[in-house]
Amino acid sequence: MKKYKIGIIGATGYAGLELIRLLVNHPDAEIAAVSSVSFEGQDIADVYPNLKEIVPMTLESVDEIIPRCDLVFASVPHGVSEEMAVKCKASGTILIDLGADFRLHDEADYKKWYGKDYKHPELHETAVYCIPELHREQIKNAPVIGNPGCYPTSISLGLMPAIRAGIIDLDHVIVDSKSGVTGAGRGLTQGTHYPDTNEAFAAYKAGCHRHTPEIEQTLTELAGTKVNVTFVPHLLPVNRGIESSIYVQLNEKGRALTAEQIHEIWSDTYKNERFVRVEKLGNYANIKNVRMSNFCDISLHLDEHCGTLIISSVIDNMVKGAAGQAIQNMNIRLGLAEETGLLTVPTAF
Amino acid sequence: MKKYKIGIIGATGYAGLELIRLLVNHPDAEIAAVSSVSFEGQDIADVYPNLKEIVPMTLESVDEIIPRCDLVFASVPHGVSEEMAVKCKASGTILIDLGADFRLHDEADYKKWYGKDYKHPELHETAVYCIPELHREQIKNAPVIGNPGCYPTSISLGLMPAIRAGIIDLDHVIVDSKSGVTGAGRGLTQGTHYPDTNEAFAAYKAGCHRHTPEIEQTLTELAGTKVNVTFVPHLLPVNRGIESSIYVQLNEKGRALTAEQIHEIWSDTYKNERFVRVEKLGNYANIKNVRMSNFCDISLHLDEHCGTLIISSVIDNMVKGAAGQAIQNMNIRLGLAEETGLLTVPTAF
Amino acid sequence: MKKYKIGIIGATGYAGLELIRLLVNHPDAEIAAVSSVSFEGQDIADVYPNLKEIVPMTLESVDEIIPRCDLVFASVPHGVSEEMAVKCKASGTILIDLGADFRLHDEADYKKWYGKDYKHPELHETAVYCIPELHREQIKNAPVIGNPGCYPTSISLGLMPAIRAGIIDLDHVIVDSKSGVTGAGRGLTQGTHYPDTNEAFAAYKAGCHRHTPEIEQTLTELAGTKVNVTFVPHLLPVNRGIESSIYVQLNEKGRALTAEQIHEIWSDTYKNERFVRVEKLGNYANIKNVRMSNFCDISLHLDEHCGTLIISSVIDNMVKGAAGQAIQNMNIRLGLAEETGLLTVPTAF
Amino acid sequence: MKKYKIGIIGATGYAGLELIRLLVNHPDAEIAAVSSVSFEGQDIADVYPNLKEIVPMTLESVDEIIPRCDLVFASVPHGVSEEMAVKCKASGTILIDLGADFRLHDEADYKKWYGKDYKHPELHETAVYCIPELHREQIKNAPVIGNPGCYPTSISLGLMPAIRAGIIDLDHVIVDSKSGVTGAGRGLTQGTHYPDTNEAFAAYKAGCHRHTPEIEQTLTELAGTKVNVTFVPHLLPVNRGIESSIYVQLNEKGRALTAEQIHEIWSDTYKNERFVRVEKLGNYANIKNVRMSNFCDISLHLDEHCGTLIISSVIDNMVKGAAGQAIQNMNIRLGLAEETGLLTVPTAF
Repeated sequence: MKKYKIGIIGATGYAGLELIRLLVNHPDAEIAAVSSVSFEGQDIADVYPNLKEIVPMTLESVDEIIPRCDLVFASVPHGVSEEMAVKCKASGTILIDLGADFRLHDEADYKKWYGKDYKHPELHETAVYCIPELHREQIKNAPVIGNPGCYPTSISLGLMPAIRAGIIDLDHVIVDSKSGVTGAGRGLTQGTHYPDTNEAFAAYKAGCHRHTPEIEQTLTELAGTKVNVTFVPHLLPVNRGIESSIYVQLNEKGRALTAEQIHEIWSDTYKNERFVRVEKLGNYANIKNVRMSNFCDISLHLDEHCGTLIISSVIDNMVKGAAGQAIQNMNIRLGLAEETGLLTVPTAF
Repeated sequence: MKKYKIGIIGATGYAGLELIRLLVNHPDAEIAAVSSVSFEGQDIADVYPNLKEIVPMTLESVDEIIPRCDLVFASVPHGVSEEMAVKCKASGTILIDLGADFRLHDEADYKKWYGKDYKHPELHETAVYCIPELHREQIKNAPVIGNPGCYPTSISLGLMPAIRAGIIDLDHVIVDSKSGVTGAGRGLTQGTHYPDTNEAFAAYKAGCHRHTPEIEQTLTELAGTKVNVTFVPHLLPVNRGIESSIYVQLNEKGRALTAEQIHEIWSDTYKNERFVRVEKLGNYANIKNVRMSNFCDISLHLDEHCGTLIISSVIDNMVKGAAGQAIQNMNIRLGLAEETGLLTVPTAF
Repeated sequence: MKKYKIGIIGATGYAGLELIRLLVNHPDAEIAAVSSVSFEGQDIADVYPNLKEIVPMTLESVDEIIPRCDLVFASVPHGVSEEMAVKCKASGTILIDLGADFRLHDEADYKKWYGKDYKHPELHETAVYCIPELHREQIKNAPVIGNPGCYPTSISLGLMPAIRAGIIDLDHVIVDSKSGVTGAGRGLTQGTHYPDTNEAFAAYKAGCHRHTPEIEQTLTELAGTKVNVTFVPHLLPVNRGIESSIYVQLNEKGRALTAEQIHEIWSDTYKNERFVRVEKLGNYANIKNVRMSNFCDISLHLDEHCGTLIISSVIDNMVKGAAGQAIQNMNIRLGLAEETGLLTVPTAF
Repeated sequence: MKKYKIGIIGATGYAGLELIRLLVNHPDAEIAAVSSVSFEGQDIADVYPNLKEIVPMTLESVDEIIPRCDLVFASVPHGVSEEMAVKCKASGTILIDLGADFRLHDEADYKKWYGKDYKHPELHETAVYCIPELHREQIKNAPVIGNPGCYPTSISLGLMPAIRAGIIDLDHVIVDSKSGVTGAGRGLTQGTHYPDTNEAFAAYKAGCHRHTPEIEQTLTELAGTKVNVTFVPHLLPVNRGIESSIYVQLNEKGRALTAEQIHEIWSDTYKNERFVRVEKLGNYANIKNVRMSNFCDISLHLDEHCGTLIISSVIDNMVKGAAGQAIQNMNIRLGLAEETGLLTVPTAF
């Protein structure tokens, strides 16, 4: 079978490298070209020696690669993806954007949180935001797919069954997330300098992280009513992984249920989902059990004395939180089996 | 000046070692004796080579050391401390217990959470639980002092100003804590085996950790009304440090305040406390800034769109969460300046 | 095509888990059965939750699984593998032993370093020790294959070109190795307890590690004369990876060469080896560039003022140092392409 | 007693911060002023929040602080310290330089390794390089003291007894060192970005690190004959600590000794040294046992079958390898007891 030709824009960022790592073993897709503004003209293995003798490719310019590809992934700063979408439209290339440009439905939200207007509003009318487990039906013909943020993925998958089942108060959602340092990207900052990060731990952007509107957009859509979320991320001294501890109050309907009945709601919701695993009651979702994989593991814990349900949802921020989910979206968009190239065993250690 | 003679029971546990580390530089106290059941008769430097040529002491039995000491610290499993208290009473030795036996006022709580009855109920009548910033007046003559747990210390100090000022709803306190691995002690478990812990992260004992009744006891006492807390600890892959992110809803009084006014409540509360530091608005409490020290750093973050106040409170679990606070209690009990021997610079890295 | 049926004995050790992780994506082999003494009768996903919904298998006894398999991997304590070999012989099952029982040619060495006699000396006559890059021709019909130790693999691959080219003194080989903590296995010890290992670093078994005779056996065989090695391993606070810094003195022939000419010896030696990559001069082999992969990366550094050649050789101790190399040996033994199922991109982070 | 007034130039580098941490508890010295080019005019606690409420000082210019101080420490890039020495001379202030400008006796070495000439050669005539255990007699009146590099300290202390006793070959010294990441400083580089450093390990500057001439200078001075060393540093994913594994061949005199006799040479040499501890035979020096302290721990291991002696020497690179040793030198220079302010217990975890 002919393999789909795939391009990667922003290939030298961490998400770009992870796309390469995963696509190398994809049976129906081949990496046709890689692009980087900072390293154009260099061999990618000179930037990332782990690719030596496996991915012998030279970094090219965006204009060179888009026309040669059936589909491109873009992992570029916000504001730049729109330009990519314009170029892709011209050559009939599908775009999956790992940045923020095509995630928010409401331009006002984009402007508020990212400080920019849309330059090409018409592109946003046909672009589709897609967490596969929630929106897979919507992207079958989309020219542009907005790939979700890492935190929103872990949170939306954790909360979705509760909202659909109508068992929680919606005016009181607290999310305490912790992310590995790759989430901050490859760019150098004092806060991600090794001695400043190792053996350290703190919250950041409490109540003001840019993923907040994306989280609320999905939850509001699910609930049919505006949902506000207090979202506080923390920087975790590990390379990979996000754990989101989600605190919700059970409503009257929810409080009438046993822990086992609540657990069954999640199990039923995800019983046919290949990449969401619901832990047995008593077990705890742990980032190590999803490392290097596209899984989202969810565990449920009931604090009866407060009427609080605690949902712990973990993903690998670079896979289900970025490159893996992007390939899952690619598979859907190209009509391939959704798990193609993604069913690997998490490394545990 | 004569130095007080101090004994350490359970000296080979992590808290015991930390007591030694801090007491070595205490100007008014000297380590007179150290005790260990597991290593009795051995040189302590054979168990902890970091002590070589600084603490040339042999581990003795409890019965040998108590009568020789003015004050002893006990860091032993729950249920054992009562026995220590009996022995201390006999020799007129003050006891500061770092375990759980003397923390809960209500025996029913102890029985529920620790599965045991008090064997010597009379001892508990004169024993005093003491977080110095809250209860220092109460221990001046106490024969037995119950030293607080690590999580409760970080949480109580973070929340106290809110409760005293009456600006939050008390029926809705969510605490998401993360602790370094020394909090789990020196005993071997699969969950603290290096390859199972490193690059891993998960919650544990969600809603059912034994520190819950201790936290609620202190908050209830402060509030004058029963306070329930949803408390979820997580194991953090660092050696030391606890960060507690506390989520509370502002009540009408609270919502009338600006972030600056709220911040002032904490600043005022702690302006004369040597070991509690309130971060400027915009800064985040980070465990690295309190490492190896007795400080508790607190930062405040207001999520106005939800009416949620986020309090981030950090301590070194082995110092302010255990050995340091115990020495702070010792200083109070012995009539010394409270900060004696404890004013060191956190190591940052 | 029919897939080969593979069994894993000692499946709940770290090497066992890694075999599972790699075999799940092997196109020509299927995991037919898994065995564990400690967890017999349990689902393996209850021991390793990362396997949930991917490897739905129950742990069986050794006797149940051997007859059903074409080939079994054994990862068991030394002394036990011989018993496995007896059982395998009875059912015509190929055995690849990841332990030490079939590594040493000389029973006297085994007795000296492991303190045991061979119980079944006849088995050792047909068993073959195999680092594929050195011995692949020898195992084509072997009933039992002794899979190499992790340290010896990194060291033998690093040194082989030097010995074959005859450019170094053989009476003066110094090897300073550092291994990630998975190398110490899943069993609990104080030395691998997280707070004792994290932020720590030390040598261990300096000059007396059991891998010494295996290293010397291979080097001696290559040199045709007895080679003695000073081998000092260190415990590195990471999960995976071995770096061996090998220090050799150039002989007259070696000193006549430029750095480029020396480099060419390694490049030529490994130009057709899929799993050995020689770094460009000036680059340094780094364990991160081989993580989760079967690669061995080697870099060369010349200290002209001392006439010393420094060879830095890195592998993932769990892959090229254990499970990956075992599968590479399996591929050879079964007549499959050597790289089948093993060509994945190292994760870098 | 009047306290000596101490200034710190380059106070916002890691060594500067460590000087502050240690001097805060020094009984005979007070930090009179701190200086930083990058952060002049700011409160130091805004740069390092761990100093909040302990060190309430504003960063000043160098010219402001030198005249006010009895002694200043400078931790600045090479080439800059000479300027500091000129200013100190003018005001009669003692200078302890933590950089490289005053370490090498031979200007040719400085030029070769640092690419610069001395601008003020006359300053170097009275400046003294000082590892206290080797050169303490020489600095009693020195106007400028060159504080040793971190690697040279660990290596010189490890090797000194061997050279003085004349038991090793001097033409064959191999040193494999590993350093925590603070050794690379606070400046941002890709190689010290958290995800590139964590779970990674590699050598760097093999055979060409700038500490090589300093190491050889000290060993040559001890031996009375030119000693060449193959020195290979590695970057260790921990915050602090250096372990140097030193490999030397015993000469005829050395081979005639038992391990116990060799051990006695080190024990005797250091029996009156407060900051050098020789491990019992069989124990291994570990960086955790010296963390946050001024100790150098040394362990000895004999590989009889190769005639190789392995010396493992560990220090905290920021303390004995920088700030602590600088204060030890200060104590000597000011006529204070050498251990003043430095006798703290290593933290172990």
